[in-house]
Amino acid sequence: MADYRSIMNFTKKIKVCETSAFATALEGKGPSGKYLDAIVDEKRKDGQTWEQNEIETVKQTVKRLLEKSEKSDGDIGVLLGGDLMNQCTSCGYGLCDFDIPYLGLYGACSTFAEGLLIGGCLVQSGFTDSAVATASSHYCTAERQFRFPLSYGVFPQGTSQHTVTGCGAAYITETQDEKGIFLRSAATGFVIDRGITNASNMGAAMSTAAADTIMRFLKHEDKTLSHYDLVATGDLGEIGLKMTKDMLYSHGYDDNKGALNDCGLLIYDIKNQDVGCGGSGCGCSAVTFCSYIYDMMKKGLLKRVLLIGTGAMMSPSSLLQGMSIPAVAHLVEFEGVL
Amino acid sequence: MADYRSIMNFTKKIKVCETSAFATALEGKGPSGKYLDAIVDEKRKDGQTWEQNEIETVKQTVKRLLEKSEKSDGDIGVLLGGDLMNQCTSCGYGLCDFDIPYLGLYGACSTFAEGLLIGGCLVQSGFTDSAVATASSHYCTAERQFRFPLSYGVFPQGTSQHTVTGCGAAYITETQDEKGIFLRSAATGFVIDRGITNASNMGAAMSTAAADTIMRFLKHEDKTLSHYDLVATGDLGEIGLKMTKDMLYSHGYDDNKGALNDCGLLIYDIKNQDVGCGGSGCGCSAVTFCSYIYDMMKKGLLKRVLLIGTGAMMSPSSLLQGMSIPAVAHLVEFEGVL
Repeated sequence: MADYRSIMNFTKKIKVCETSAFATALEGKGPSGKYLDAIVDEKRKDGQTWEQNEIETVKQTVKRLLEKSEKSDGDIGVLLGGDLMNQCTSCGYGLCDFDIPYLGLYGACSTFAEGLLIGGCLVQSGFTDSAVATASSHYCTAERQFRFPLSYGVFPQGTSQHTVTGCGAAYITETQDEKGIFLRSAATGFVIDRGITNASNMGAAMSTAAADTIMRFLKHEDKTLSHYDLVATGDLGEIGLKMTKDMLYSHGYDDNKGALNDCGLLIYDIKNQDVGCGGSGCGCSAVTFCSYIYDMMKKGLLKRVLLIGTGAMMSPSSLLQGMSIPAVAHLVEFEGVL
Repeated sequence: MADYRSIMNFTKKIKVCETSAFATALEGKGPSGKYLDAIVDEKRKDGQTWEQNEIETVKQTVKRLLEKSEKSDGDIGVLLGGDLMNQCTSCGYGLCDFDIPYLGLYGACSTFAEGLLIGGCLVQSGFTDSAVATASSHYCTAERQFRFPLSYGVFPQGTSQHTVTGCGAAYITETQDEKGIFLRSAATGFVIDRGITNASNMGAAMSTAAADTIMRFLKHEDKTLSHYDLVATGDLGEIGLKMTKDMLYSHGYDDNKGALNDCGLLIYDIKNQDVGCGGSGCGCSAVTFCSYIYDMMKKGLLKRVLLIGTGAMMSPSSLLQGMSIPAVAHLVEFEGVL
C-alpha cells in the first residue's frame, strides 16, 4: 500500500511572488546563467575568507529579493534558510542583519525545497502569511568542509559533481490573486541509505530517495510524469539522474515527454564546462529554481513543475569514520496560471 | 509598536501525548535525574566513536518514545530533529532507520523548541496529524566540535557551561481529548548578535534573544510572567539567566512568583556538580522538558509552562575567523488540563 504520510495539497492560495538568484561567472556561463540577478566573485578579497564570501552572498541575495518584491523586513513573516557549512554558518550569519524571525534548517542539498515545504505549511496553518526560503553553497567552502582544501590540489573523481557557488531565495505569500506562480503541494521524504560511502558519488547515494518521493507523490496525485512540463531533481547530476530514471521506468513511470531533468544539469553545460557530472550543493536547486525555472514559468513556457530537492546527510566526521551516506528528498509542486 | 510576526495560538487541540529522555549518570545525579527514562553510558565501547555513541542514543530515545506511546513507525506523520554536530550527523544517522518522513532542523540549542514549533504548525496546517520532535547533544562530541578535543586537557573557563549528553523526544498529535498536556502557542525568534566572541560565554550571547522573544510573546498575550508556573529558558546557564532576568525587570516584567528558570540549572545541581554555570547543548532543554517538566505537568504540579529554546548560531569556522556569536530563541507554550 502506498504511504501518503506528510504529503499535502495546500488549500490556501500560496503564490511565489518573486525570486532572486546570485552565482559566479561559472554558473553565469551555464544554461541558466542569463536568468541570474547578479554575478558574484567567489574569490576572497581584502582579507575576506571563503566563508565570509558565502555569508555576504546570502545577505545580498535576500536583500535583492526584498528590493525586487518592494518589501521591507517588516513585511516578511519568517525567514527559512540553511546551507552546507558547519552549523549552517552562511545563513546563521548572512541572515542575522534582517529584522525577520528566523528558522534554521538542515536538509543538505534538499534545504531549499524543505524551506518551501515548511514555509508553505506555516502559511497554510495561519502562523504567518508570508515567508522567504533561501539556501546557499560555495565551491571552496564545501570542498574544504567535505573533501579537501582546494590548495591540496586533489583531482576530482569521475563521479564528482561541482558545488554551485551561489544563493537562491524565494518570497511566498498567501494571496487572493487568480494569476501567478502558485505553490500547490509538498511531500516530505524518508531518509534512505543505499550503503554508498564515497563522498564523490553523491548522485548515486541520493537517487533512491528521489525516486521514492517522486513515486509516492505521483501515486497520491494519481498522475504520471507526463502531466508535468518539468520534473527537476536537484542535485543528482548525470549518474544519479540516470539511476533515478531507471528506478522510475522499472516501476512503470515512463518519461514520454522528457519532463525529467536535474538542477545539476540545468545549471551547467557538463559537456563544455569542467564540472564533472553536474552541479551540486544547497545553492544548486535554489539558484536553478530562482533563475531559469521561475523565469520560464513566468513566461508560460513551463506550466506544471515538480522540484525534488535531494540531500545527502553525511558529515566529514561520519565519512572519516567509515559510515555510509543517508539521503532524503523533499518535493514541492508549482503551477503557473497566466 | 510590538512585533507580532510569527507568533501563533494554535486553534487545533495539539496534545503532547508522550515524551522520552535518555542521558548519562551525570544528568542522572542532577535534579531532573529521577525523571529520566534511561541512563546511557557516554563512554565509547567496542571501537565505537563518540559520534556513534550519540547516534545510538538518538535512536534508542525515539525507539523508547514509540514503545511508550504504543505506536509504530507508520503511525507517526513526520520526524523533526537536529543536533550540534557537523551537518546534524546524530539525527541524520540516528533517525534514518525509522520508516518516518524526516525534516532536519538546525537551531543550535533552540532545536527542540523549533521542532515543536514547526511540528505544531504542520499539525495545525493539516499536513500531518502527528509529529515527533527530538534533539540531542553529547559532551565529548560537542567539545571536540566547538572547543578542544577532551584529550587536550584544557581547563574550562569560569563562564563555561557543560554540554548535556542526552536526547529528548516528544510525540504530539491532534486530539479531541479534553484532558492532557497541550501545545497552545509558539513564537519564532529573531537572530540577535550582542557581539560576544567567547564560545565559553554562550549564556551571555543568547540572553538578549531570550528576553526579546519572551517580551514579544507576553505582550502579544497581554500576560505577565506570573501567569506561568514555569518560564524555562534553555540553555542560558546561571550568568545568561541573570542577564535575561535583568533585561526583563528593566522592561517592567517582574518575576514575583519566581517562575523564571533555566533548563541548564534544572538539569544539574551547579553547586555540587562540576558543570560550570549549568547545562547546555541541544539535549539540555530537550531532556529537561521530556523528563522533569513533562512529569511535573502530568502530576499537575506545573500547569502553565513556557519553554524558550535558546540557540547560539556560531560554528568552529566562524569562531576561528573572529566572528561574534549570533543567537536566536524560539518559544513554545504548554498547558496542562487534568
